Amino acid sequence: MAKRGMLIVLSGPSGVGKGTVRKALFDEPDVDFEYSTSMTTREPRDGEVNGVDYYFVSKEQFEENIRNGEMLEYAKYVDNYYGTPLKYVNETLDSGKDVFLEIEVNGAMQVRANCPDAVFVFLTPPDLMELKNRLIGRGTDEMDVINKRIEKAVSEIRMMRNYDYAVLNDKVENAVERIKDIIKSERLRVSRVMPDYELMLGDK
Amino acid sequence: MAKRGMLIVLSGPSGVGKGTVRKALFDEPDVDFEYSTSMTTREPRDGEVNGVDYYFVSKEQFEENIRNGEMLEYAKYVDNYYGTPLKYVNETLDSGKDVFLEIEVNGAMQVRANCPDAVFVFLTPPDLMELKNRLIGRGTDEMDVINKRIEKAVSEIRMMRNYDYAVLNDKVENAVERIKDIIKSERLRVSRVMPDYELMLGDK
Repeated sequence: MAKRGMLIVLSGPSGVGKGTVRKALFDEPDVDFEYSTSMTTREPRDGEVNGVDYYFVSKEQFEENIRNGEMLEYAKYVDNYYGTPLKYVNETLDSGKDVFLEIEVNGAMQVRANCPDAVFVFLTPPDLMELKNRLIGRGTDEMDVINKRIEKAVSEIRMMRNYDYAVLNDKVENAVERIKDIIKSERLRVSRVMPDYELMLGDK
Repeated sequence: MAKRGMLIVLSGPSGVGKGTVRKALFDEPDVDFEYSTSMTTREPRDGEVNGVDYYFVSKEQFEENIRNGEMLEYAKYVDNYYGTPLKYVNETLDSGKDVFLEIEVNGAMQVRANCPDAVFVFLTPPDLMELKNRLIGRGTDEMDVINKRIEKAVSEIRMMRNYDYAVLNDKVENAVERIKDIIKSERLRVSRVMPDYELMLGDK
């Protein structure tokens, strides 16, 4: 049996640039992840291809998948479902290939519950780091606007607690390099390589 | 107060090449770790400098250090003590600098008990036969000594379970790159960067 692949989950606040970073990462010549295509009940937009951009299914089909435990994670936004079919992820991991998921924070927490040995990366906006200085430096915002922004930042940081790594998205190429470092390093985790070594010790 | 530095512990079976890898790592221009010099009661060999290769102390002094809780880890080999003075490590970490320890497996487990947030890297030989060849190649040991070391290596590899990462020492430059990947990736750990984010918003 092949060694099970690694599951990487990239998530982060809305608007942080998850899709852009994921695409840039997949363009790297030395990155070889299987990308898990999401399933949705929303209508395809112009140019979107079924099975590439999304699997487009009916609401009835999606709800049946949920009932049958066939979704690794899912969420409902504006009356439409979005989620990750479990079967493709499991089959790919079982074949020894690594899988990459780029999903929203609620979905990531569902994956964390189902796959504790996945690697969870939280993409943080640069303005989260610079937020306070910018707000003070600018000196133009009303206090309630400042407070709302700080509040949002605080709740985003609280979400970060449940992840393994925080990757600052100051520049797309920097974020990609950081994720590549994480991937290389995670491949060396004792919990992942121990089966290989046990095999070696077994027939010494 | 500066953010506390990161403690990296490199260990592995005798003869795996810990010292060579550590020296090559420290020669890298972009690696900036403080190296913690070990303390020993053995006699200095030709060319060895006190405070550089080791702190050379008397057996009485070393045992007093143990009694006073001043050793982060220590062990006795062939009637001599070897260990890491606690004070230097703590002061360096408190000043925000990162510390690198290259120590034997028993010592590493003592550090694990004292510093659970340290990063533990286990250097592994390409395979056990390779380890045997290296020991024979060194030409300084009798065959029964070599066999005992092999047996010890098997049990040491079992100890790998207690480490975070396994780094294969197939080539020194590969092992160095792997350790550099681990260091870069560990700097992105949520548990390490969370204090920065909390500090940033804490005094809003």
